[in-house]
Amino acid sequence: MGLATQIGQIRSAEVRLAEENAAFLRAMGISMVHLLASPGAGKTTLILRTAETLGRQLRLAVIQGGLSRQIGTPPLSDLDLPTIWIDTGGQPYLDASMIREALEELPIADVDLLLVEEIGTLTSPPKRSLGASLRVVIASLPEGADCPLRYPEPFSVADAVVLNKLDLLPHLEFDLPSFHKAVRRQNSQAPIFELSCRTGKGLKEWSVWLLEQTRSIS
Amino acid sequence: MGLATQIGQIRSAEVRLAEENAAFLRAMGISMVHLLASPGAGKTTLILRTAETLGRQLRLAVIQGGLSRQIGTPPLSDLDLPTIWIDTGGQPYLDASMIREALEELPIADVDLLLVEEIGTLTSPPKRSLGASLRVVIASLPEGADCPLRYPEPFSVADAVVLNKLDLLPHLEFDLPSFHKAVRRQNSQAPIFELSCRTGKGLKEWSVWLLEQTRSIS
Repeated sequence: MGLATQIGQIRSAEVRLAEENAAFLRAMGISMVHLLASPGAGKTTLILRTAETLGRQLRLAVIQGGLSRQIGTPPLSDLDLPTIWIDTGGQPYLDASMIREALEELPIADVDLLLVEEIGTLTSPPKRSLGASLRVVIASLPEGADCPLRYPEPFSVADAVVLNKLDLLPHLEFDLPSFHKAVRRQNSQAPIFELSCRTGKGLKEWSVWLLEQTRSIS
Repeated sequence: MGLATQIGQIRSAEVRLAEENAAFLRAMGISMVHLLASPGAGKTTLILRTAETLGRQLRLAVIQGGLSRQIGTPPLSDLDLPTIWIDTGGQPYLDASMIREALEELPIADVDLLLVEEIGTLTSPPKRSLGASLRVVIASLPEGADCPLRYPEPFSVADAVVLNKLDLLPHLEFDLPSFHKAVRRQNSQAPIFELSCRTGKGLKEWSVWLLEQTRSIS
């Protein structure tokens, strides 16, 4: 069997698994949100803030991917939420089979919104699916307003774009209109949420959107 | 032929090409420095500043990787240096064959120091070789002091670590000793250069080191 055929078969199996994850989540009325971002863009902090903001309205759970167990205590372990930490053993992205295993471990009957924190990169295979209901890409001001032009794929498939670290605007040369224009070149529809996880600015709009999306599913 | 065998053969061919690149560069007395970093850590700006600082002592050239041509004008095109822009067509890392082609296009007899800007990610295959003399990983303050723990591989193989955006220190919660400790867990030897491409602070130490390394080769 040729290399392309074998890779094709592995991909098909992945696609099937992702579809099964999606069907399972739909049946359970769970919104699974796949969060993609560079290292340091603020995925974990956005999860923390979202849990603070929506914790009374929705039952949240978290799946968090990491390249290795070296960091010791997973960063969300203080959070009083069901959290699964997936150690990918160096693989630079989560896959549908990892998500399936995590779904089996979670108290899934008591979950409305499942946030999945991807390994931090904007270059992992963008079109692969975990079975998530929504894909959200998080950029942050230090990455530059042209980030969506340099790393187009995750922005092109996103259902929403979060621009984090708005509090750093006075300290950086960052042109907000350029960022919006760059996102719109990849994606004509996705809402763009400008926010600061540090100051809380803009978190309400993001949370309202996420709440609406989740309620439309369950 | 099995998948593993075929992947193995592709890898061996890559390793051979990288060794040939390395041998060619050694023979020409050229120092090739492979720069790895997240999006927005400041690879391009570090190249600009390095060119300003060392442009009179060394003949520089640049190879710059990008995922797509969408960004229009490559960011270094204003620089009066031989620059090759490699469009990887979506592949999230440069490879030895791309470097070989670029070496054929560059006026290589007139180059002392060749800076190679990798696609922005800390998760690409870390042990692959392009044939570079030195590997440098660039982190920046917004990525957090625990970045080397979360993305250990590029730090473990680095010959030097640059910590950029030091000017943001007053505006972030970033603990410098924690960062050093995190780097040292991956790498006992690599020098760590704290600098700000924006203010110029720390650039001299980095440039002196790079000059010494390059002179020891040519």
